[in-house]
Order: sequence, then structure tokens, then C-alpha cells
Amino acid sequence: MALSAASQHSTLAETLPELAPPYRLLLGPGPCNIDPRVFRALAAPQLGHLDPEMIRIMGETAEMLRWMFQTRNELTLCVSGSGFSGAEAVLSNLLEEGDTLIVGSLGFFSGKIADISQRIGARVISVTTEPGKPLEAAALEKAFQEHPEARLFATAVAETSTGLYQPLKELEAITHAHGALFVVDAVCGLGGVPLNVDEQKIDACYSGSQKCLGALPGLAPLTLNQRAVEAIKGRRTPVQSYYLDLLALNRYWNGDHAYHHTLSSNLVYTMYEALRIAKEEGLEARWARHKLHGDALKIGVKAMGLSILTQPGYELPVLTPILLPAGVAETAVSKALLNEYNIEVGGGLGAFKGHMLRVGLMGYNASQQNVYTLLQALEHILPRHGHAVTPGASLAAVDAFYSSKQR
Amino acid sequence: MALSAASQHSTLAETLPELAPPYRLLLGPGPCNIDPRVFRALAAPQLGHLDPEMIRIMGETAEMLRWMFQTRNELTLCVSGSGFSGAEAVLSNLLEEGDTLIVGSLGFFSGKIADISQRIGARVISVTTEPGKPLEAAALEKAFQEHPEARLFATAVAETSTGLYQPLKELEAITHAHGALFVVDAVCGLGGVPLNVDEQKIDACYSGSQKCLGALPGLAPLTLNQRAVEAIKGRRTPVQSYYLDLLALNRYWNGDHAYHHTLSSNLVYTMYEALRIAKEEGLEARWARHKLHGDALKIGVKAMGLSILTQPGYELPVLTPILLPAGVAETAVSKALLNEYNIEVGGGLGAFKGHMLRVGLMGYNASQQNVYTLLQALEHILPRHGHAVTPGASLAAVDAFYSSKQR
Repeated sequence: MALSAASQHSTLAETLPELAPPYRLLLGPGPCNIDPRVFRALAAPQLGHLDPEMIRIMGETAEMLRWMFQTRNELTLCVSGSGFSGAEAVLSNLLEEGDTLIVGSLGFFSGKIADISQRIGARVISVTTEPGKPLEAAALEKAFQEHPEARLFATAVAETSTGLYQPLKELEAITHAHGALFVVDAVCGLGGVPLNVDEQKIDACYSGSQKCLGALPGLAPLTLNQRAVEAIKGRRTPVQSYYLDLLALNRYWNGDHAYHHTLSSNLVYTMYEALRIAKEEGLEARWARHKLHGDALKIGVKAMGLSILTQPGYELPVLTPILLPAGVAETAVSKALLNEYNIEVGGGLGAFKGHMLRVGLMGYNASQQNVYTLLQALEHILPRHGHAVTPGASLAAVDAFYSSKQR
Repeated sequence: MALSAASQHSTLAETLPELAPPYRLLLGPGPCNIDPRVFRALAAPQLGHLDPEMIRIMGETAEMLRWMFQTRNELTLCVSGSGFSGAEAVLSNLLEEGDTLIVGSLGFFSGKIADISQRIGARVISVTTEPGKPLEAAALEKAFQEHPEARLFATAVAETSTGLYQPLKELEAITHAHGALFVVDAVCGLGGVPLNVDEQKIDACYSGSQKCLGALPGLAPLTLNQRAVEAIKGRRTPVQSYYLDLLALNRYWNGDHAYHHTLSSNLVYTMYEALRIAKEEGLEARWARHKLHGDALKIGVKAMGLSILTQPGYELPVLTPILLPAGVAETAVSKALLNEYNIEVGGGLGAFKGHMLRVGLMGYNASQQNVYTLLQALEHILPRHGHAVTPGASLAAVDAFYSSKQR
């Protein structure tokens, strides 16, 4: 077969240079930098997706995920995709065309639950909060009163767009009192904030590999309890997606390992090693570490004269949404952080676009060094972009905080 | 929050050992071993999915994919998932509930097109071939005559389950004569067999990263021409999947780079480097290399008294389906290859389960060394499992073949 004109006249240089991405400190809303141990695991030899060694590693990874989720659920596995693929897997398996669900829409990410569910053909009742404010139990109760046919309620424990840490206890009680399934998005939360799927009676929970878990992007861990599994088994129609069919995926991960798709062994290695590191640290110590450095960052940011979007008492330790004063351009600050310090942070979404920095301290990156590094960089950059800062005030406040914690 | 009983009484050993997967020679139907250069690229520093450096790398990767697909299509990108996610992306974007499509079902993998499309809600007309035999033009013409409402025809250029290399020219002409879209599954073919999307008038084509392209699993490259894009734009309903919405994905890859999902930078690095290697080799040289070693393997296998499933003249260079004689158990042979030689091969699917070895020589693995290594291993193993082999006959035939090609 002859090569076409596209080949002969490609605008592409004959050979592109070797890749040389710069080292970035990833302090955005994810991905975060993985532990060097996870990088070592990444480069281990490939295995086929049906190799007995791979099946063994998958089994151990699933068992560590059960520990991470704090669950005994058999259906615990990774979807081969980003966090949104986990969301879509859970929703498209639990919902059928015409079903009603209530979405606790706390911001951009939990808001996506509505979009995903609508595409599935479900009827979406959104209960929306003001940015940075939690969903109140009364609002959910009202929604269930008005829509008793709702068979599922879904929200996020950690809303990445507004740094909200959503309490779940009352929402769970209301959801189950109305006989619906309780679904929690923990993409940003798992491994960073307290979560106990069985104790909190969460019927289905999904996450992402690249945030507080500290693996590479490309896997979406999730877990469903028996009640959720029965709901899938009772479907009137097949799940719309072959790729995200959870019973078939569970058979591959936890059953007779029948072929479903080509799993990326090396991505699973990163999950295995990240979970092994978490297990060495311990869950409560890991949650406490994220809380400690998240608190320190917030103290340092406030000492710089900046404010946090989230309502006090509901701040997410792992993601801090910093409001920029009028006249300070988000892109100018984030570009300076990237170009002068190789630090990536996130920007505002929706109404906050252009006016916010979203800083993640997740997994390996939740450390005192990173709190210091970011605050010093901001102290250097902000005055040049319209926000005066008292030199040294921020770090003095942070040092005092860390000292108080060591006593 | 207290840790649950699941944590306190986990059956999991407190800390699992460091990962130590063995080095396998992956000669199954994919994944194949990646070039050591691709491993180096894999371990390059992570980038965020919106980093300007990452956007630049994505742009160059997409441009190299256009060269690989031999197309000028703007909508050329990678879905973040396995090959099946690419199939599902193309089908779920081009089909709506109630639409009719004709599937050229050549075996397990092109047969999956039917399953995926049915779940989407489409009406599937399957035109099935005998295993290892190509789809004849007359059969497709008949299907279109009977189902003039069919708006899409999909089949595979390389059917991995039966080693079939399907000619496309007549199928394309018939499909377009009936005004339908021509969709080609090239999961196993791209980078290994001649394919020229523009010249062959393919409206949509998808592939997998881990076969002849030689990257890690986890990405599904695909390309759609303007006619296919217009079909998506003309949909009556939104695409059922957020994750696989191709116009949104194209906006992220090739448009204003608006956030869609968290891309795995390191997987894209493997695609970039694999394509760079392909570009250095050249497309025709790469196709010829796959053909040379695929032919050599088939000659060696036949000299061992074994036969190939595929109808002569339609053998796929990159995947050889070896029929095992009665009394020779597939699992005994493949287990011996794995345990004694660290060689992975695939087994038979469907009716061939237990009676077939499927051997892939793809990407980096399409080499003379691997032909020799596999044939010698088989010569050692087969006699112990019920098939007598004349020592040395196979390699003598292969040597003669290679010599004839060097003249």
C-alpha cells in the first residue's frame, strides 16, 4: 500500500526530540507527585492481564483497597480509567433509563454526577448548595419528600472545586430512611480524609488513583456493597456500557478472572505500591498528616491576608481554595508559580475562574516541605501581582502552628 | 473516626512484600513488551493534565498518530482506557438508540462490536463468517439490501481471535454506496499491517496502545473524519457517556484544551516514544518487519507439523493462531511455556478454547530472536505433551526462509 500525501507532506518534523518534561511540584487538585517508591514500582516488568502473577497482584491490590475503603465488600476493584470513569461506572450500573436520583451538587465535581446521570437517561433532581457550604439534611429530606420515587442519592465527601468536606451521617440516615441507595464520590477524599465505607453505610463509593492515594492517574478504585450488587442484578436492561459493566469487571478482578479488557499492569503496580506505603503509615496517621499540613497551609495563607472560600468548620484538609483579592489575576500568579518555581496549582472553576488558586496537599505531597515551599513562592510572587504581603508573617504563623502541634 | 473491625481483623498480612514480577516475554495477543526506550519515557517526571508542556506533548502525539493512521483528520486522539474503550467511544458517539448497524463479525473481538452496540440501544445485524475466513462482499451487500436503514457498518481489519487479515476495499465501497459510515477496528492492526485511513476512506478507526504500536496498555488511539464528526454533531440525543464523549475529548486534545478528565501523563509518554520509534523506522519498513517475522513463525510452526487456523491468503502477520492436534492440551503447553520459559502466549477463544495457541509478534516483539526463542521452546515442550516433533526441522525451515529474504 502506498503512503499517502499526508505522509509525504507531513508538517511534523521527521523525528521529534526525546521527551524531557520538567520536574513539577504538583500542588493542584491532582494528580500529585508519586512517592519515588511508586516510580520504582511503575518501572517493574510488564505482565499480561491474565498472567497468574498479575491475577495475584490484582487480588492483593483489591484486598488493600478493601482496607483503604474500610469495607468487607467483595466488589472492590479498579476501573481502567480516570476518576470520572469510576463515577460513570457506579452510576451507569445502578441507574436505568427513567430512574430518578437526587444529586447533592456541591460544586463542579459532584455537579458532574448530574451530567453523567442525565446522559444515562436518568431523571436528575439536583439539590445545590452555595459554593463552599455543605448540603444540609433538611434540603435532602425535602427533596426525598417531593421525589419519593428517587432510588439513589449521590454526593461527594470531598468537593474538589470548593474545598468542601461534606458531612455524611445525616444524609445517609435520610437516604436509607427513604429506601434509596447512598452513593459517595470520594475521588479527592479516599486516603486523605476519614472514610469508613461499612461503618458509614455507604452503598457505593468511587475514587481516583492519583489524588490522596498517591498512584498514577488511570485507575478508578470503587467498592459496592451487597445491596448495590443486588440492585445491578435486578436491572431490567443491560448496563449501557460494556467497558464499565461492574459485574463483568468483578468477575475479572474477584471471580474466575475471565477476560474483560486489557488491564495496564504497570498502573496496577503503582496502586499496589501506593497502598503498601499507606498500609505502612496506617490510616489514622495518614488522615492526621493530611489534616496537619492542610491546616498549616490555611494558617499561612490567612497570615498572608488571603481568605479561604470554604465555610469554617467544613474545610477539606487536602484541597485549599484560596480566594484572590480583586485586582490579582489568577493566571498571572499560577503562571509565575509554574515558570519561576515549577509549581503547579489549580485555578477556580465556574464563577471563581480567574479569582482562585486551588492548592492540593495530597498523598506524598502532603508535607511540611511543600507547605513552606508554596508559601515562600507566594510571598515572592503575590506583591508583584497586586497583593502586598508582610515578609515573614506567613511562615512565622506556620512555624508557631507546627510547634504547637509538636508539644 | 474509629477504624472498623475490617481494619483490626484484616486477613491481609500487615505489609505485603515489594513487587517483584518476573520478566515475561509477552508473545500473546497483546500486551507486548515495550522497547526499553519506551520504559525510559514511562519513568519521566509526571505532568498535570493541563500543564502547557503536557498540552504540547499531547499535540505532538496526536500529530504522530495522524501519521500512523495516515490521515489528516483533526479528531485524532487517545481515549484513556483499553482498546474496548476506543470501540465503545466510536460506537456510542456514532450510534443512537434505535439506530441499525451491520457488524462484520469475524470472531470474538469484532463480535464484541455487536455486544457494545446492543447495550447502546442500537439494532444489530450481524454478518458472521466461519472462523478464519474473511467476510465476502456479497454477504455485506445482501445485508444492506435487507436493511437499507443501516447507518453504519463496522468490522475489524485484524481479528485477533482467528488471526484474520480482513480485506477492506470492497466492504468500503458497498458501505458508502449505501450511504452508511465505514468503521474499522484496528486494535490489533495499527502499526503492524498496512492501513491508510484517508486513502481507504475509513470514516472512523480505533486501536489499542499495547499491541503493534508498542506503548503500555491504557490508551485507545482513534480517528474520525469530518463525515463522522458531522454525524455526531447531528445527534438527536446526547452521547450516553460523559467519559467517552468524543467532541469533548477532541476539545481537550485538539481544541482549547478545556478540562475533560485527568489524563495519565506517563501513559502518554509511552505513546509519544513508541510513535517516535515508529517514525524513525518508517511505516513501510515497520509493516514489512511484522510481515517478515510473522511469515517466518508460520513456516516454523508448519514445519513442526502444526497448522494455522486462518484461510491461506488472509493470514494476519502479527497474530498467528496455531491449532493444536487432538490430545495436546492448550493449558499444558501454555503453562509450560510460562513456567519453563517465562513466555506468555494466548489461548483459543470460544470453540477453540483448549485447542489453540495464539502467538503475537507485535511492535518491539516482532523480531527474529523471538521467532527462534518461541519455536525452540515449542520443540522442547510439545513432545512431552503429545505431539512428536522432528528435532531441528522447524528452525532449518525458518533459517532457509530468512536466508531467501536476505538475498
